[in-house]
Amino acid sequence: MVKAAGPGRPPTSVDIARVAGTSQATVSRALNGGRVAAATRERILAISRELGYTPNAAARSMVTSRTGLVGVVVSDLTNPFYPEFLEEIAACLGARRQHMLLQNAAGGGDREAVELLLQQRVDGIVFTAAVEGSEAVADLVARRFPVVLANRVVDAGCDSVEGDHPAGAAAVVDHLAGLGHRHIAVLAGLPGASTSARRLAGIRDRLTSLALPAPDVVETGFDYDRAVRAATELLTGPQPPTAIVGLNDQVAFAALNAAAALGVAVPSRLSVAGFDDVRQASWPTLGLTTVRQPQVAMAARSVALLNERIDDPDLAPRHEVLPAELIVRSTTGPAAS
Amino acid sequence: MVKAAGPGRPPTSVDIARVAGTSQATVSRALNGGRVAAATRERILAISRELGYTPNAAARSMVTSRTGLVGVVVSDLTNPFYPEFLEEIAACLGARRQHMLLQNAAGGGDREAVELLLQQRVDGIVFTAAVEGSEAVADLVARRFPVVLANRVVDAGCDSVEGDHPAGAAAVVDHLAGLGHRHIAVLAGLPGASTSARRLAGIRDRLTSLALPAPDVVETGFDYDRAVRAATELLTGPQPPTAIVGLNDQVAFAALNAAAALGVAVPSRLSVAGFDDVRQASWPTLGLTTVRQPQVAMAARSVALLNERIDDPDLAPRHEVLPAELIVRSTTGPAAS
Repeated sequence: MVKAAGPGRPPTSVDIARVAGTSQATVSRALNGGRVAAATRERILAISRELGYTPNAAARSMVTSRTGLVGVVVSDLTNPFYPEFLEEIAACLGARRQHMLLQNAAGGGDREAVELLLQQRVDGIVFTAAVEGSEAVADLVARRFPVVLANRVVDAGCDSVEGDHPAGAAAVVDHLAGLGHRHIAVLAGLPGASTSARRLAGIRDRLTSLALPAPDVVETGFDYDRAVRAATELLTGPQPPTAIVGLNDQVAFAALNAAAALGVAVPSRLSVAGFDDVRQASWPTLGLTTVRQPQVAMAARSVALLNERIDDPDLAPRHEVLPAELIVRSTTGPAAS
Repeated sequence: MVKAAGPGRPPTSVDIARVAGTSQATVSRALNGGRVAAATRERILAISRELGYTPNAAARSMVTSRTGLVGVVVSDLTNPFYPEFLEEIAACLGARRQHMLLQNAAGGGDREAVELLLQQRVDGIVFTAAVEGSEAVADLVARRFPVVLANRVVDAGCDSVEGDHPAGAAAVVDHLAGLGHRHIAVLAGLPGASTSARRLAGIRDRLTSLALPAPDVVETGFDYDRAVRAATELLTGPQPPTAIVGLNDQVAFAALNAAAALGVAVPSRLSVAGFDDVRQASWPTLGLTTVRQPQVAMAARSVALLNERIDDPDLAPRHEVLPAELIVRSTTGPAAS
């Protein structure tokens, strides 16, 4: 007979954890059907029976009320990164027999999307395009609602998965510097988007550490048409850059198209690089040099973290960084002299 | 005092219609808040009060249980046509304060998507990628659940909206024939997809009426990678075509990329044309000649038809055909001799 809980109060999962010699989180997972070694689960269940443990109603309801629905919030499906990423997320959810409910939060307005998903009683939400200062994300985290940020990271104390932006940025700068580029322009994205902010910081840092000039930076909001106008202005200005880095492939394609429209040859007169490696980047007609995001791994880890969080809302927030890789194709070459 | 309903039974909407001298459908719209002239609505409401009409519980529940949610079923978000089309549909729904719940029915398996949407109690469903023989669509229609087919049409007796495929096909054939092309290949899509079947029939018909040879036809399932392989085989075969028509832009891009990989110059050695006019088609780096689908109008009409159907499930099925337009760009030119 294991040592019983103190007199005068019903046993809790903390008591079980103390007796079992495990963390309370492990007890929670074992009792709620989460991932835990079979032997551990058996021992925890035996102890909970011996202690006369009854999960409280709220906890029990939380378990039984699962819908198997997972909300996914995106912001721009016409950026091909998102459909590709969603396909991976849907596959990961499908493998767990969960269903994806998709909401489009155009322009960063994610509150309405979240409300709709909560009305549909999703078990958790994956944000693929959160921006810094999102109140919707902060509210959910404050209510301990299961949330994971996939691809974007904001300062909200929740689980998140992203690519290694500093490493990716350093790789693209090293590549361009090695080709002799000294005058580099950057088509930036949304100021509050971590993908944009971290990639830009990475580029600046690497240029500084190589003692190369700071880049020209133009905001585009990751909008294709704005990026075409920005690239056109850069290329028709008094001192056109010899290389343009788009902080996603979408705006890098805009630079390629602005150059094509102006008759600026790529890569002999202008080098262009992007971030993401969407499928079109590998098309022979485009051949974009780009920093590949770990889409498949990001989707898998995001879904795994979300489900661990659904099983155990008490876990400390996790942050995972997955490797990014420079893919050199035909849009980058030696700097024009 | 208007003539009362017969003795011994409560008045129905048919009685109101008879007294009002309108159709029962108009009465239904007036009582359910649908679109009807203000004067007509007032008169119908007055008559229904005089007759002592009480809507039955089922009808009342149908009205009060509206969720404002509309399901949209897509099949391949990585074909850029669908994200663009969804953006238009979302805008039309948003203008009516309705919300879009998106479901991906990959590979034509739409039953699971439909079940999930029904669980979420959507008021109606827009199918953007229905294929012939869809049991899910047939079931919904049999149950008089509001459904509209947008872009695709199947023989299921429900509302549908599509582009004018015969006219689009004729325009692209006339264009290529005028450039001297006699050996045309077609990258077809899904056999059960009306977009593929009708465009192909239109191309065959026009070639026949111009007394030109029938096209080589290769199935691709609208899959990009299959289309690249098919185009590569055509271009490396004993008698390569002088023109390839892709039955959507996605597979036309595949033909362009297959040609680029093989060093086959476009348009001097090979002309390529597509259908849809997705945004990338207008990129200067691609410049695809294509038949533009009336995306914006199709979205608007689909949402309008669905809402009319939600207001009045008794309407006869409507089928609308919207004009398509050939956009000539840089991938088509005179046939190589």
